[in-house]
Amino acid sequence: MAEIGIGIVGGGYMGKAHAVAMTAVGAQFGTSLRPRLEMIAARTKASAEDYRQAFGFRRGTDDWDQLVSDPDVEAVVIATPQKLHREIAEAAFSLGKPVLCEKPMGASLEDAEAMVAAAEASGVANMVGYNYIRTPASQFARKLIAEGAIGTVTWFRGEHTEDFYADPDAPATWRTSGMANGTMGDLAPHMINAALALIGPVTSLVAEVETVHTQRPGGAVTNDDQAQIMCRFANGTMGQMHFSRIATGRKMGYAYEVHGTHGAIRFDQEDQNALWLYRAEGPEAERGFRKILTGPAHPDYLPFCQGPGHGTGYQDQIIIEAHDFLRAIETRTPVWPTFRDGLAVMRVVQAALTSSRTRAWQDVPQDPTI
Amino acid sequence: MAEIGIGIVGGGYMGKAHAVAMTAVGAQFGTSLRPRLEMIAARTKASAEDYRQAFGFRRGTDDWDQLVSDPDVEAVVIATPQKLHREIAEAAFSLGKPVLCEKPMGASLEDAEAMVAAAEASGVANMVGYNYIRTPASQFARKLIAEGAIGTVTWFRGEHTEDFYADPDAPATWRTSGMANGTMGDLAPHMINAALALIGPVTSLVAEVETVHTQRPGGAVTNDDQAQIMCRFANGTMGQMHFSRIATGRKMGYAYEVHGTHGAIRFDQEDQNALWLYRAEGPEAERGFRKILTGPAHPDYLPFCQGPGHGTGYQDQIIIEAHDFLRAIETRTPVWPTFRDGLAVMRVVQAALTSSRTRAWQDVPQDPTI
Amino acid sequence: MAEIGIGIVGGGYMGKAHAVAMTAVGAQFGTSLRPRLEMIAARTKASAEDYRQAFGFRRGTDDWDQLVSDPDVEAVVIATPQKLHREIAEAAFSLGKPVLCEKPMGASLEDAEAMVAAAEASGVANMVGYNYIRTPASQFARKLIAEGAIGTVTWFRGEHTEDFYADPDAPATWRTSGMANGTMGDLAPHMINAALALIGPVTSLVAEVETVHTQRPGGAVTNDDQAQIMCRFANGTMGQMHFSRIATGRKMGYAYEVHGTHGAIRFDQEDQNALWLYRAEGPEAERGFRKILTGPAHPDYLPFCQGPGHGTGYQDQIIIEAHDFLRAIETRTPVWPTFRDGLAVMRVVQAALTSSRTRAWQDVPQDPTI
Amino acid sequence: MAEIGIGIVGGGYMGKAHAVAMTAVGAQFGTSLRPRLEMIAARTKASAEDYRQAFGFRRGTDDWDQLVSDPDVEAVVIATPQKLHREIAEAAFSLGKPVLCEKPMGASLEDAEAMVAAAEASGVANMVGYNYIRTPASQFARKLIAEGAIGTVTWFRGEHTEDFYADPDAPATWRTSGMANGTMGDLAPHMINAALALIGPVTSLVAEVETVHTQRPGGAVTNDDQAQIMCRFANGTMGQMHFSRIATGRKMGYAYEVHGTHGAIRFDQEDQNALWLYRAEGPEAERGFRKILTGPAHPDYLPFCQGPGHGTGYQDQIIIEAHDFLRAIETRTPVWPTFRDGLAVMRVVQAALTSSRTRAWQDVPQDPTI
Repeated sequence: MAEIGIGIVGGGYMGKAHAVAMTAVGAQFGTSLRPRLEMIAARTKASAEDYRQAFGFRRGTDDWDQLVSDPDVEAVVIATPQKLHREIAEAAFSLGKPVLCEKPMGASLEDAEAMVAAAEASGVANMVGYNYIRTPASQFARKLIAEGAIGTVTWFRGEHTEDFYADPDAPATWRTSGMANGTMGDLAPHMINAALALIGPVTSLVAEVETVHTQRPGGAVTNDDQAQIMCRFANGTMGQMHFSRIATGRKMGYAYEVHGTHGAIRFDQEDQNALWLYRAEGPEAERGFRKILTGPAHPDYLPFCQGPGHGTGYQDQIIIEAHDFLRAIETRTPVWPTFRDGLAVMRVVQAALTSSRTRAWQDVPQDPTI
Repeated sequence: MAEIGIGIVGGGYMGKAHAVAMTAVGAQFGTSLRPRLEMIAARTKASAEDYRQAFGFRRGTDDWDQLVSDPDVEAVVIATPQKLHREIAEAAFSLGKPVLCEKPMGASLEDAEAMVAAAEASGVANMVGYNYIRTPASQFARKLIAEGAIGTVTWFRGEHTEDFYADPDAPATWRTSGMANGTMGDLAPHMINAALALIGPVTSLVAEVETVHTQRPGGAVTNDDQAQIMCRFANGTMGQMHFSRIATGRKMGYAYEVHGTHGAIRFDQEDQNALWLYRAEGPEAERGFRKILTGPAHPDYLPFCQGPGHGTGYQDQIIIEAHDFLRAIETRTPVWPTFRDGLAVMRVVQAALTSSRTRAWQDVPQDPTI
Repeated sequence: MAEIGIGIVGGGYMGKAHAVAMTAVGAQFGTSLRPRLEMIAARTKASAEDYRQAFGFRRGTDDWDQLVSDPDVEAVVIATPQKLHREIAEAAFSLGKPVLCEKPMGASLEDAEAMVAAAEASGVANMVGYNYIRTPASQFARKLIAEGAIGTVTWFRGEHTEDFYADPDAPATWRTSGMANGTMGDLAPHMINAALALIGPVTSLVAEVETVHTQRPGGAVTNDDQAQIMCRFANGTMGQMHFSRIATGRKMGYAYEVHGTHGAIRFDQEDQNALWLYRAEGPEAERGFRKILTGPAHPDYLPFCQGPGHGTGYQDQIIIEAHDFLRAIETRTPVWPTFRDGLAVMRVVQAALTSSRTRAWQDVPQDPTI
Repeated sequence: MAEIGIGIVGGGYMGKAHAVAMTAVGAQFGTSLRPRLEMIAARTKASAEDYRQAFGFRRGTDDWDQLVSDPDVEAVVIATPQKLHREIAEAAFSLGKPVLCEKPMGASLEDAEAMVAAAEASGVANMVGYNYIRTPASQFARKLIAEGAIGTVTWFRGEHTEDFYADPDAPATWRTSGMANGTMGDLAPHMINAALALIGPVTSLVAEVETVHTQRPGGAVTNDDQAQIMCRFANGTMGQMHFSRIATGRKMGYAYEVHGTHGAIRFDQEDQNALWLYRAEGPEAERGFRKILTGPAHPDYLPFCQGPGHGTGYQDQIIIEAHDFLRAIETRTPVWPTFRDGLAVMRVVQAALTSSRTRAWQDVPQDPTI
């Protein structure tokens, strides 16, 4: 088995998740390429050393540039605030090192375009960290739709709703300023990415983006609390989306439903181990949505457990992601979602922001126009 | 106990439901005013006689005008195709007879306006038959929101989705032509009515209305299969709606969810005896959506059963409606939804149709502008 | 259409339900035989007159014997306390009048045996009022099992749980004394009847019957709060049951699950319009319990509504029962559950009481041994 | 941070799960004691080497005795067939090495008793691997009940049902012979352990244990397919259990419900991230079972994710177990369930087997009687 030195930039919430994933993925999936936790970068020497010890890296640094350029760091995971994504990624690609970058790509559309250019110029593996679509259930949903199991798709509805800012008295923090930290920057990309994966490109949309609670204890809120979209997909499907961080009661409301001419699919991440499938076949009296529990018959489940219904969780999604990243590196084949796929998400986000401002339908620029 | 002679125009699906309701409502609710099934009108003498016998009316007629003007018919229920609603209602009101009219009001906005004028000129009881909002669960939802149980409302999502035309090979019938028989004419009014009742007036919207399957065996389809709306309510709430007759797997998808600053509500008519309530109070570790089963503690449940969770059904909604209509007659007090309330629904429908054509946001004219 | 004069003995909870059912059943089902609400009997002249007016009977009486012997009363519905069941039924049968008797039959096994003898000697229609098994969902479950849709049955679990006495401080009333009013007398018969209908005869069992709260404000409790049974059916199936009036949180917990070699069925009356079916067929990855919403494709649904998923409720079960009773009268063919079927339920109840006392497995006497 | 050398005996299903857990637990929980994957033992040199590489151990061996006695192996995880549990555990304890042993303990009650004696003589950490009860939801359920959140417990129902042998044509394998591999040996201990944890000791029971499909392709079946128990707990609570490997449709049916005088709890491992709680408080109209999604407010969730509702899975249970084992080692304080707790489970299993044979209630010997 070959080994690959991993450097992770950022030791917070997602940095830890990626560190654990890189630790576990080898044994979990039996990969031939095995990650070695080579270096972690954080803001200060002290925090870097803390993360190093906590997560089991060989070395820590307060200088991401040092990490990227270290010869024993052979692949880079970016788990920093969004504004640093571009710079780090460009540095890594310039050295020919594969990059797994947390979503969303960069702090702006311009960043994202530059990152795609850098990634494709380098020719190495590049992936964006959309973890939720990697559950066995959502992978299976995608497969079912692609295979025509529900016929021609006629409708899509998606949401990414949580309630961590539902309380109007929750104080202002770094999360309540900066477009990238608002609902469109932070939550919407997950579900837009799912929409693109399940249905295909979005060609036009009309949207509203709003800050419901403009003042919070501690200051003004300068990014959005919730948003809604109506859209058309390239294949003609009509759809709706909703994103919110003030959706009282919703904890992980990453949910979608898809209607087709011969069936339908429903999914809610709050019960991530179940996929609901309706097939318009057989006697009318026996038709109904089936609650399918994920198991070894579904993508990327078996490495976690031999028994169906035993369940995977949040951390497992990141492990699946790590596996895919290793696969992309090893096979030198792009694994979805690449940076280019991530750019498509950001174009939809951008069109929604524009539509909300112009109060008009917007076309979404398609792929070749980088 | 006083008696009132009821005349029902139309003996089909809804005519039967109203006939049974008028038969049962007295015993079920212990009303002081008791309906007497006086006369039923249908298209032919033969069908009128069939309905008379089947439903237990004293007399039948093939002439609705005779029914309306008969002195022993003291109140009129209109359950005909929509194009006849206006004419019958105007005739009844001109004779000072109360009218319960099936939704939607008339075949056009003009009809609806004329009907409101006639109703209000007569001063007698007038009601529109939006049955779904009359379940104990939805009545309770309305009460909770009105009382502020979930705080300030921040989001509304509603749908009325069924799948009776999901199969592209289902043949064209009378249902696939005529705006009033399409999704916006037939299904959308129910959920728009719910939205107005739960949240308040809709002031602006953007919509798409589409015919997905334009050809069916037997001919072209000239009305809509599905539609979507994004809207703003007068109180500032943002919202989304979706209506469909091709929503594969959905049988009675009259569903809504409402987020507020201190709670949330979810409802789905496919499980009409449950209301889901989330309250943002108490220890975080014990918070969750409660599945409240309707019972004697909820509106209009006790007349049907003393035990909670024992459940009411579709026909019971029509009985509740009959009870409300009798109450409006007896107390000479308007009972929601009056014709004026029904007109408000039709204005939203009209604005949606316009928006779909213009592909632009539309303002919805408000009440005083009749 | 022929008419039949109905007499109902008892005007309380169930008396009202039967009165409404007899009022509505004709129009709802389009029966050829039409009930005429001839007479209602209650304890006092005043209450009889109240019920007469409230439910729309022609006459009232405080003497059930007068009701039974009145020539215009052609069929009798017994909705009195259990201790009167036998006497009334015997009187009616002696006059050749069909009887629909609320469950359970009589106050004792001896009563039940005598009632079967009287019923069968008279040769007229006789039915016991087990309403819950008459939902479209449970009728369909029974049909599926009988047709072998889930293969050979290997397991049954049933419960009838409510929580109306869960609060230890709820006061003692008539309900807390008398075996017939306890859990084994009042609730268990419903689920035992379901077990017999779904799986077949119970041949042996071991049981525990207990009074958890022996003292309540107002006095001692002399009947049971909950009970449990393990049993064997004649076809070899193993099973469990549980009955409770102190099942906190359960409102209408009439629920069962049946495993078979090729499928499984689950049902819970708290969501009475859904039946869950699992079929062990098709690709493993697509298997799951389907939530089938009842509709026109299921037994006795269409008379209530043409649309699937629109739902039936508690009162509708009694209407279905009335329809079956009319059918039994008209066709002179026994309609399940007859008095003999009701006796089989009581034998299981009796064996459970005995087993709880002896703390040993008990055989359940089978049918021929009346 | 200190390090501890871990040896795992067995590289199959559970061996892998424990290996991954030991790899991940340090970073996931930020433990001060860090596992070092020192040695893995398997049946052959070749398989040991395969496991070593796959899971990242330093060394492999085909001799478990070598593993146990190796000075760098400081703690032992037993993940072999049950018949080896005792011998390995005794060897480890004799060297003063802590042991985490997969359930159930040993192949017989005698084994289990000897293992408790050895563990307690050694005085080192000893734990049995009941993973399912370690979900944040079930830990929280246990806490709620212990704190009296649902009042005095009045009822318990538990099941552990799966369907991996539901198909009568599934062939005979090693799993269909040997008591330890049957339902009572393999599945029942999980739920019995849960019952003891949630409610307390079981003092008496009556049970049935049966082999439904006695012949399968490839040979006779000599262990049990399903079983049922009725029992009494030391605190007087009445209860039922059911265990099955032929429960068609059930994939991970580890489920329980507990009624108390002031509330109730329901849980089903097939949706392991939700706990259903009913509290008999507040207005009747607002009562209902709440679906609580696990999150940072619940035990052992936060190490996996900062967001509630994001979910943990099967592998995470094993990681929690590893964390508890490390804690027991480090603090030299017993962490539930110790070998003595595991013995209590086996005594219930034994009493059930006896009861099924004698067809009589059995007392369950309590703890001091080792």
